[in-house]
Amino acid sequence: MSEIQLKSDFDVELIQHTGDDLMIAKAAWVSTGNEEPKLRDGQTLENCVEGVLKFLIKHRHGTPFEHGSITLRVNIPVFLWREWHRQRIGFSYNEQSGRYQKLAPVFYVPPDERYEHCVKPPEWKPSKPGFRGLLPAAMKAEATLRSAYKDAYSAYDYYMARGFDNGLARIVLPVGIYSACYVTCNPRSLMSFLSLRVDSEDATIPSHPQWEMHKVASQVEEVFSRLWPITHRLWVGNGRVAP
Amino acid sequence: MSEIQLKSDFDVELIQHTGDDLMIAKAAWVSTGNEEPKLRDGQTLENCVEGVLKFLIKHRHGTPFEHGSITLRVNIPVFLWREWHRQRIGFSYNEQSGRYQKLAPVFYVPPDERYEHCVKPPEWKPSKPGFRGLLPAAMKAEATLRSAYKDAYSAYDYYMARGFDNGLARIVLPVGIYSACYVTCNPRSLMSFLSLRVDSEDATIPSHPQWEMHKVASQVEEVFSRLWPITHRLWVGNGRVAP
Amino acid sequence: MSEIQLKSDFDVELIQHTGDDLMIAKAAWVSTGNEEPKLRDGQTLENCVEGVLKFLIKHRHGTPFEHGSITLRVNIPVFLWREWHRQRIGFSYNEQSGRYQKLAPVFYVPPDERYEHCVKPPEWKPSKPGFRGLLPAAMKAEATLRSAYKDAYSAYDYYMARGFDNGLARIVLPVGIYSACYVTCNPRSLMSFLSLRVDSEDATIPSHPQWEMHKVASQVEEVFSRLWPITHRLWVGNGRVAP
Amino acid sequence: MSEIQLKSDFDVELIQHTGDDLMIAKAAWVSTGNEEPKLRDGQTLENCVEGVLKFLIKHRHGTPFEHGSITLRVNIPVFLWREWHRQRIGFSYNEQSGRYQKLAPVFYVPPDERYEHCVKPPEWKPSKPGFRGLLPAAMKAEATLRSAYKDAYSAYDYYMARGFDNGLARIVLPVGIYSACYVTCNPRSLMSFLSLRVDSEDATIPSHPQWEMHKVASQVEEVFSRLWPITHRLWVGNGRVAP
Repeated sequence: MSEIQLKSDFDVELIQHTGDDLMIAKAAWVSTGNEEPKLRDGQTLENCVEGVLKFLIKHRHGTPFEHGSITLRVNIPVFLWREWHRQRIGFSYNEQSGRYQKLAPVFYVPPDERYEHCVKPPEWKPSKPGFRGLLPAAMKAEATLRSAYKDAYSAYDYYMARGFDNGLARIVLPVGIYSACYVTCNPRSLMSFLSLRVDSEDATIPSHPQWEMHKVASQVEEVFSRLWPITHRLWVGNGRVAP
Repeated sequence: MSEIQLKSDFDVELIQHTGDDLMIAKAAWVSTGNEEPKLRDGQTLENCVEGVLKFLIKHRHGTPFEHGSITLRVNIPVFLWREWHRQRIGFSYNEQSGRYQKLAPVFYVPPDERYEHCVKPPEWKPSKPGFRGLLPAAMKAEATLRSAYKDAYSAYDYYMARGFDNGLARIVLPVGIYSACYVTCNPRSLMSFLSLRVDSEDATIPSHPQWEMHKVASQVEEVFSRLWPITHRLWVGNGRVAP
Repeated sequence: MSEIQLKSDFDVELIQHTGDDLMIAKAAWVSTGNEEPKLRDGQTLENCVEGVLKFLIKHRHGTPFEHGSITLRVNIPVFLWREWHRQRIGFSYNEQSGRYQKLAPVFYVPPDERYEHCVKPPEWKPSKPGFRGLLPAAMKAEATLRSAYKDAYSAYDYYMARGFDNGLARIVLPVGIYSACYVTCNPRSLMSFLSLRVDSEDATIPSHPQWEMHKVASQVEEVFSRLWPITHRLWVGNGRVAP
Repeated sequence: MSEIQLKSDFDVELIQHTGDDLMIAKAAWVSTGNEEPKLRDGQTLENCVEGVLKFLIKHRHGTPFEHGSITLRVNIPVFLWREWHRQRIGFSYNEQSGRYQKLAPVFYVPPDERYEHCVKPPEWKPSKPGFRGLLPAAMKAEATLRSAYKDAYSAYDYYMARGFDNGLARIVLPVGIYSACYVTCNPRSLMSFLSLRVDSEDATIPSHPQWEMHKVASQVEEVFSRLWPITHRLWVGNGRVAP
């Protein structure tokens, strides 16, 4: 019998990338025939790059932000892939297949920080659709979740053993199961994703992703901010509106 | 306690459409400045349309097939949406949300025809990855599936009652649960979908979708063949290679 | 010798469409499982549609606006197609080909209204990059343009007569020549186009298209506003920010 | 008065890229949970990569070929951009703007090799639409082209001097003028482009681009074949059908 493994974190690994803030500026400068900017007194190339990126973001000239690429290997539960995969433009995916392999028994349970605020249940309104908030500590659910996952995976084992094809046997598996996927996108499509999937007070148009989606997207944002630091900073400063 | 409902068929409902075979021909004719074709002796407009569509499909001139649109309302299990939603180009989706509503307890079980060939288990090789074939009748699984689905939905009920937000409570739900979605696409993107998702002996490049995916896609193909009959016939005749 | 034809207007013809404001609302309602809305006292279906569309536009939930389609036949000069064709997502094109036909000698000259404000040249700053404004009346250019176009088309005639292939002979043709194209898009991609290509005081993020592009896009907007009147009105009211 | 510059070649410069054949294989291997392949006796990693890429190309599993990126700076005449820019999916563009700068007087004339085969005019059929062939040497056109380009650019100069905005003044410029553009794409979208824009005897579905388009695309293919050599070789071997 397969042993169930519970997991509460999300894996976001940088695999490869190309491009930086300067490349975005260069792609914009081709418009005006100014690919090698002449620096004025005291001006650095970085000043110049910052100037043009600020203009592009403010006026929503988005195409220069497509001249870069980032590939991540991401391991998160299926209910999060169901949301992420709805990003169609400027996103490429290759995910592990439930037809070509037996899926491993690794399942999501909420971590302690999902419960850490000691909310008293009567004051608390869970029914709000966009709710991404924290749960009362009394609700900790690890034991019951383990049991539910275990039963489901046993049924999966059973159908596999009986000879069901993988694709059919998987129908009993819950969306809390983990799945790995390669994701490739560009800075523009990434900002579009982050504007929807991170809950931030800086956002001009607020978005209310589920707590778990917010967590994953925040990890992706951290990678983005390291690779395109000027773009990231200016985009945040402009209310996180994707150009 | 919620009552489980089992279901073995798939709902594909035509909601709206525009365009026909003639419109595709007209979009192609604008290239050559021949939007109102001159009919030669004995030639009908339909002959002309057929001629140009045959040329387009054979030479893979795909863009004229984008000047049309079809909207379907489709109700199928989540494991099939997981595959369908990977079609990104020329496809629009709006699906019911597991965050904004409580999902109804409707689950997929394989119908009799999934088992109808009386294969003897020893002769039968379920491990082939692309297998979409039929199961030995001895494998009928309705009772055990009902039980697995029931347990999972009870856990869902429990977490909803405790006050989990919908998005979190759903993590125990299996991918066999049904979900409804509006899908809009055009004849070109639809042919691309059908070439991957229908298993046909007419295909030059064979594809081996799961039995259930094949069933759904075949229903979609039936709608397509009624609305764009010439395009459909010629595409089949050209080995189902999407232009 | 071919006779030159000068033209100052743009042709935007509605060929086909499907979908309306209600369809967009329905596609959104599937999210919440509320496809047949229950009307409260005094509430009409139109009130309901307006309510949901307002919410979608304000919060930039864009996908429901993709469940519709519109096909236009547009005849405008090549320098405008050069801009329009940069819209990639949700746009399909079939344009007349300079390789498969001889292009007709129809060329653009600015109409009187391009000059109508009697700007005095000294006060006037033509060098502003995004300038879409009007020209001093003294600048009327029809005669010199006719001559330039005529010379260019004569060279085209000459190369065609000598036996150049069409694709090569066309290299002398100016971008002021007209070209016809079928364009298919959906309400969402159309709003994205209009937010960039119409200069409007209602725009939260102003855009400064060339005068001619603005004129064409305004004609397209007029068609859009007739077919999706509630969507159009709410989108304008929300600062013309495409959802 | 501006001096005209004639040019017969095309500039294709590699700016940046990421990804290689191995990365494509890895993206595919995630499907089967086999990201670190176990090498059998005598098998090298390269053998493994070749094996999976061959399978992917033959069966048209295209998505793994999207996990890479290449940025080119390309300088070619406008009549070629008009064709190239019709590639919408997986392509990003930033081109010099005829509204934000004065365009330089650099124009295309056919090189000697366009004429090198000594075709006798009577045997020669220029009217074939897809013709990309060579011209009789007697047709050399440099002097007349220079004159036509010069007249057009003089008119442009004149309108700029009179105070027309750049966007309007350009309407007299012929499509033989050069324009620079940054292009970013991925191996999959690139193969789709090459299958249409290179005329090759290896092609299962022949394509007949104009001679000049073929030349440019061949230069692009040379870059591609250096960066993804296994993918390129297998794709050619499979009839240049884009996966």
